[in-house]
This record gives sequence, structure tokens and C-alpha cells, in this order.
Amino acid sequence: MGKGRLIVISGFSGAGKGTVVKKLIEKYDYSLSISATTRAPREGEVDGREYYFKTVEEFKSLIDYNGLIEWAQYVENYYGTPRKFVEQEIAEGRNVILEIEVQGAMNIKAQYPDAILIFIATKDIETLEARLKARGTESDEVIRKRITRAAEEADSMDSYEYIVINDVLEECVDAVHSIVVSEECKKENKTRFLIDIKKELEDYIGGR
Amino acid sequence: MGKGRLIVISGFSGAGKGTVVKKLIEKYDYSLSISATTRAPREGEVDGREYYFKTVEEFKSLIDYNGLIEWAQYVENYYGTPRKFVEQEIAEGRNVILEIEVQGAMNIKAQYPDAILIFIATKDIETLEARLKARGTESDEVIRKRITRAAEEADSMDSYEYIVINDVLEECVDAVHSIVVSEECKKENKTRFLIDIKKELEDYIGGR
Repeated sequence: MGKGRLIVISGFSGAGKGTVVKKLIEKYDYSLSISATTRAPREGEVDGREYYFKTVEEFKSLIDYNGLIEWAQYVENYYGTPRKFVEQEIAEGRNVILEIEVQGAMNIKAQYPDAILIFIATKDIETLEARLKARGTESDEVIRKRITRAAEEADSMDSYEYIVINDVLEECVDAVHSIVVSEECKKENKTRFLIDIKKELEDYIGGR
Repeated sequence: MGKGRLIVISGFSGAGKGTVVKKLIEKYDYSLSISATTRAPREGEVDGREYYFKTVEEFKSLIDYNGLIEWAQYVENYYGTPRKFVEQEIAEGRNVILEIEVQGAMNIKAQYPDAILIFIATKDIETLEARLKARGTESDEVIRKRITRAAEEADSMDSYEYIVINDVLEECVDAVHSIVVSEECKKENKTRFLIDIKKELEDYIGGR
């Protein structure tokens, strides 16, 4: 068994990436990295499930001790990816999903060049707006802000290797899994196999 | 709907690529290109199902009229891929499977740079030998020849983009399909989408 891969999922706020990740974990065999944050837990959020909730002091200590593979500050809160879980899982051959922002994704790719970067989008902006409105919990102002943010995120889409459109949820989930399966079939990731099989063929032909 | 893709399947003789292709067609939505050949039909083979059986004169005429996208001669027989079906299918947005030899695969890639080249292998040579023996129809001499041929084919594996190991048939079939799905998600194949969504975002931000 080789090392596991990091699968970095980013996407428009409102594209449904949280649901995609949830289904992916349910349906296929992935480990999920839980981020650390200094923001306060929201109603119903559980420490270690949605996030590891940390004080600013705890978070800074994590940074100091190299305990995060990437971190960033949004508004006044810190967010980061704990190193230990990720490194342990990939060492044991498991594929790990990280749902993170564009900036974090770029940091991950710089450190783990074989990380797979996937961007989840809606098929158009009308759909994104409709989904945000359908939540019924957000004001027009907030919706506008989220779409303005999507515009910034769209500028970064070119840095992703794969773009998956979340139109039909199940298809989107399967497409993400397909990307991981196909990455494992890439010739570049079959170096060991190629060496071995050529050797076996040589032995077969030479040896009998 | 964009253009369809060509999916070129090659592999070791005995790796089971014929069965993989058959299952792929049954399970997913692909068109299958039927090759033309001058070799005589074998027991049970039907014209237009396994091959289009042609006389040498007919085959040469196909070549002369640019009716084949690739052709090659093996031993004393000609084999080729009829152009009309392939071009019609991809123009109508369907993905077409071509089960062809290494040399033909290279010819296809030169003409259709977005063709997806997939090589089907067994996990090792012992397995390949065991499968050939299990057929029970082939002499040790023939088996030896086929494995010697596999050694030549292995030299060409580096020219393929994907290598799929046919260990569990169903998994192999799904892996090939995953490759096609993931290719459609590649950023390079989302150029139109990227242009459109950025334009929509600009309009949204600028327009309201």
C-alpha cells in the first residue's frame, strides 16, 4: 500500500461543498480532516466534529509548535489544518479530504505537490443565488456579499486541477470520487508497477 | 453539449480488455467503434459485431478514400478504424471506445490530441500466464508467444496516460469510467464554463 493522497475541496460559498463532503465520507472510504478555529461554536456545532474550537492562545501555540499544515485568518478568526491527523492518515495509505479556502488550498499544494485540488461550483450564478435564497436565513445583503466573494474565488479557480459542477448532488459526489480513482491510475502514479512488471517480463523471457 | 471524446483501450493480450470493453458498454453510455479487418471471421464472429470483414481490395480502397483514421498490418492481415462512425459520434457528443493495438493508439493520439489513452494490465505476469493457461485452448508455445508480445507492449505503456489493473473486473470497468468522468472535470476541459461564470459574476457585481 502506498501513501494516501490529500484531496482538497474548495468552492463557492453556497455551492453545497459541505453536503458533497458529507456524502463522500458516507459513501466512500475517505478520512476527513477537521479544521481548528478560534471562532465561537454555533448552535448545534460539536467540538471535534465541525471544528476543533480553540482559544486564540491555543491556536497560536499550535502555530508555534508547527502543529498546523496551513492556517489563515478570516475577519477576526483563525482557521487551520492540524498536521498530526493528516500526516498519520496519509502515512497509513488513507485518502484525506480537506474542505478549505482557496488560500489554504494553495498552501497545501505547495507542501504536498501530489494533493488533488478540486473546486466545486454551481452551473451558473443564477443557481448559486437561488440556493442562497432558498436557505431563507440570509438577507439580500449577505447573499450579495457571498456572491461578491464567489467572484474573488472564481479568480482562483484556474489554480485548481479539477472543477466539478454540483448540479445533481449524487453525480457531483461520484465525480469527485472518480477524480481520485483516476488519479491513482495515472501513469505517473504507477512508477513502481511499471518497473516491477517490466522486470517480471524480462525474467520470464530470459529465464525459461 | 461539447464534442465527445475518444477513449483508446489497449492492453496485454490476456489482460481481459475485451471483457472490460463489453462490460463498459453494457454499464455506461459509450459508443463502440468496430474495426475493419481482412482476416477471416472465426467461428461465431458476425460481420459488423466483432469486425467489419473486408477483402484486401475493399480494405485498400478504404485506405485510398481516407475512410480509416488509422490502420496497421499484423502478420498478413490488415486492421483499421473506420472514420465515419467515429467522427459522427464525437460530433454528436458521444464518447467512443476504440480497442486497438499500441501502434494504432499512437496514431489516434497524433490526430486527436484529446483522445484518452488507457492501458489495461494484469497485476503481474504470473496472473497473465495463469489467465492464458486457464483458457485451456492455447498451447504452451502460444502462451509463451503472447507473453513475449506483452513484453513489447510493456515498452509502450509509458506512452499511455492511464494504466488500469484488471484484478477485479467490476473495479477495472468502474476505474475506466472514472477516468473519463474525471477527464471531463479537468480545468483544461472547462474553459467555456470558466469564461461564462466569470462573465456572469462580473455582470452580477457590476449590474446591480
